[in-house]
Amino acid sequence: MAQKTTLKEFEAVYPKLEEALLDHAKSYKLPEKELEWLKKNLEVNPLGGKCNRGMSVPDSASVILGRPLTEDEYFKTATLGWMTELLQAFFLVSDDIMDSSITRRGQPCWYRQEGVGMIAINDAFILESGIYVILKKFFRDHPRYIELVELFHETSFQTELGQLCDLLTAPEDSVNLDNFSLEKYSFIVIYKTAFYSFYLPVALALYYLDIATPKNLQTAKDILIPLGEYFQIQDDYLDNFGLPEHIGKIGTDIKDNKCSWLVNQALKIVTPEQRKILEDNYGQKDDAKEKVIKQLYDDLKLKELYEEFEEKRAGELKDMINKIDESEGLKKQVFEVFLSKIYKRSK
Amino acid sequence: MAQKTTLKEFEAVYPKLEEALLDHAKSYKLPEKELEWLKKNLEVNPLGGKCNRGMSVPDSASVILGRPLTEDEYFKTATLGWMTELLQAFFLVSDDIMDSSITRRGQPCWYRQEGVGMIAINDAFILESGIYVILKKFFRDHPRYIELVELFHETSFQTELGQLCDLLTAPEDSVNLDNFSLEKYSFIVIYKTAFYSFYLPVALALYYLDIATPKNLQTAKDILIPLGEYFQIQDDYLDNFGLPEHIGKIGTDIKDNKCSWLVNQALKIVTPEQRKILEDNYGQKDDAKEKVIKQLYDDLKLKELYEEFEEKRAGELKDMINKIDESEGLKKQVFEVFLSKIYKRSK
Repeated sequence: MAQKTTLKEFEAVYPKLEEALLDHAKSYKLPEKELEWLKKNLEVNPLGGKCNRGMSVPDSASVILGRPLTEDEYFKTATLGWMTELLQAFFLVSDDIMDSSITRRGQPCWYRQEGVGMIAINDAFILESGIYVILKKFFRDHPRYIELVELFHETSFQTELGQLCDLLTAPEDSVNLDNFSLEKYSFIVIYKTAFYSFYLPVALALYYLDIATPKNLQTAKDILIPLGEYFQIQDDYLDNFGLPEHIGKIGTDIKDNKCSWLVNQALKIVTPEQRKILEDNYGQKDDAKEKVIKQLYDDLKLKELYEEFEEKRAGELKDMINKIDESEGLKKQVFEVFLSKIYKRSK
Repeated sequence: MAQKTTLKEFEAVYPKLEEALLDHAKSYKLPEKELEWLKKNLEVNPLGGKCNRGMSVPDSASVILGRPLTEDEYFKTATLGWMTELLQAFFLVSDDIMDSSITRRGQPCWYRQEGVGMIAINDAFILESGIYVILKKFFRDHPRYIELVELFHETSFQTELGQLCDLLTAPEDSVNLDNFSLEKYSFIVIYKTAFYSFYLPVALALYYLDIATPKNLQTAKDILIPLGEYFQIQDDYLDNFGLPEHIGKIGTDIKDNKCSWLVNQALKIVTPEQRKILEDNYGQKDDAKEKVIKQLYDDLKLKELYEEFEEKRAGELKDMINKIDESEGLKKQVFEVFLSKIYKRSK
């Protein structure tokens, strides 16, 4: 059984990356005040998360190698993992502005912190730029350096297109259920979330180990994209049906006019009368209206519908995993680890 | 004498690049509405400028080759030129939000256009991503592909650090002249403007022609960075001393609390009494106070100070250009063209 990294081990790598970024800025003679600002940006925004995405890079590499990683292997794969976290920080800082969010990881969103405001947009850019500074510093001589760079470019673009679709489909200020559809829903969750959260870390491990053959990449995509979609559907399910004491928050998707899996499923099966209920009550900051929607979801048996979906999707994924051809170095276990963490999770 | 591209020729290249980007988005099955949005983003934001940066890529390449470019050479260098325009569009769209600007190129800023708002942040990201999609499509087989990609990364990071310094030094809402200094001024104009506007296009031409030797790149930087700084100083000078009928606008740097070359020069030479005048009148949206500053600038003979600066800097640049070693393929004329466009310009 391959070793599993801990958050503590993973976090221990970050100061070296932060230092490399600050050193790079110092080489430009960035003035002192700006250097301090940069340091704060690099500490507040990428840190404090669960790092599931980031840690899955060394974990996947270790599973594929079938042994614990050497110190250098761990540093390099954890660095790539941190680049997924930096990419996420870039998106979260900017999404929070676009979504007018209030808090992030229990703190005020970066743009809402003292003196930050719209400077957060430029700070988000800097987080993104940091990815390429680090890749150049630590991977310039790697045989798959350019592919690593291109993977980050492509994943960024995919995520941005997903975010565009999300922003145009579910604007916070105008409710129009005609915008919603399961096709749009799938596009949004696959592009906005699945590529960077699931495919990217495994593809990074494959490139790092130089076994990113077209076949291995395709297999990873074929499994991790539906798996990422399933993860997000589950997230939407838990937002309404999960226990606040498990998920650590009170769901707000109904009030926030979210293009959630639940409302899309509801739209598919409602009677004209029930559609009217949705129209009149969805996406409004009103406890009573939210309760009406929750009752409708129960009447429509969306909990059962989700449970059926979960069994079906998990079964399909297990089948795909079992059929993986390991001859080019990929391991079924990489995906089994992902699936086991997700299947029937309650938080 | 090498051929000079016209705006019309240069603009004729863009539709192919736009099409390539839209095709790429279509390959992801981006829904129709989002595709239309993307198309509008790709038309409103990169187009409508003078394209001086972009056109200087084919122009520099033609000067270096000493002959008109072939059709393929023109397409490729104009494409690289358009990537500098895409980079600029990425920065302008986001800077306009950060600066609360009202208009851009005679139109409302993108974020102020109907239905856009903060979606403009994501649109800016997409413009940036477009650079790497196009580089991959048209330059993947170029011997300097990775260097081209890294040049865009590095220039982006430099520009972002310049913007950070600008935002922290001259916030629009609080006037504190203690923040200003000529050192900060130089950092801001060199990082925020000179790298991407002057060094980038020439470095792109050098990489494209595969003569980007360390020596040629260093020569280009040694000349184009002080030249870019001079250009921005001139811009600041014209904002106050230029004729509105020449520069096409009425300068607002004093009212906008800009960290301009003029106020920095003033701060260096003022008496305590004059410093008080600056403190009391700079950076306020008040015609009378602006007039007081304008009078102070005249009393301080900043026009004459600028003219001395211009003669000195132009002389230094001419000396550097004359000393260029052309043995590795670089040509003095590349820089002579830049300098002649800038020296004593009135608009």
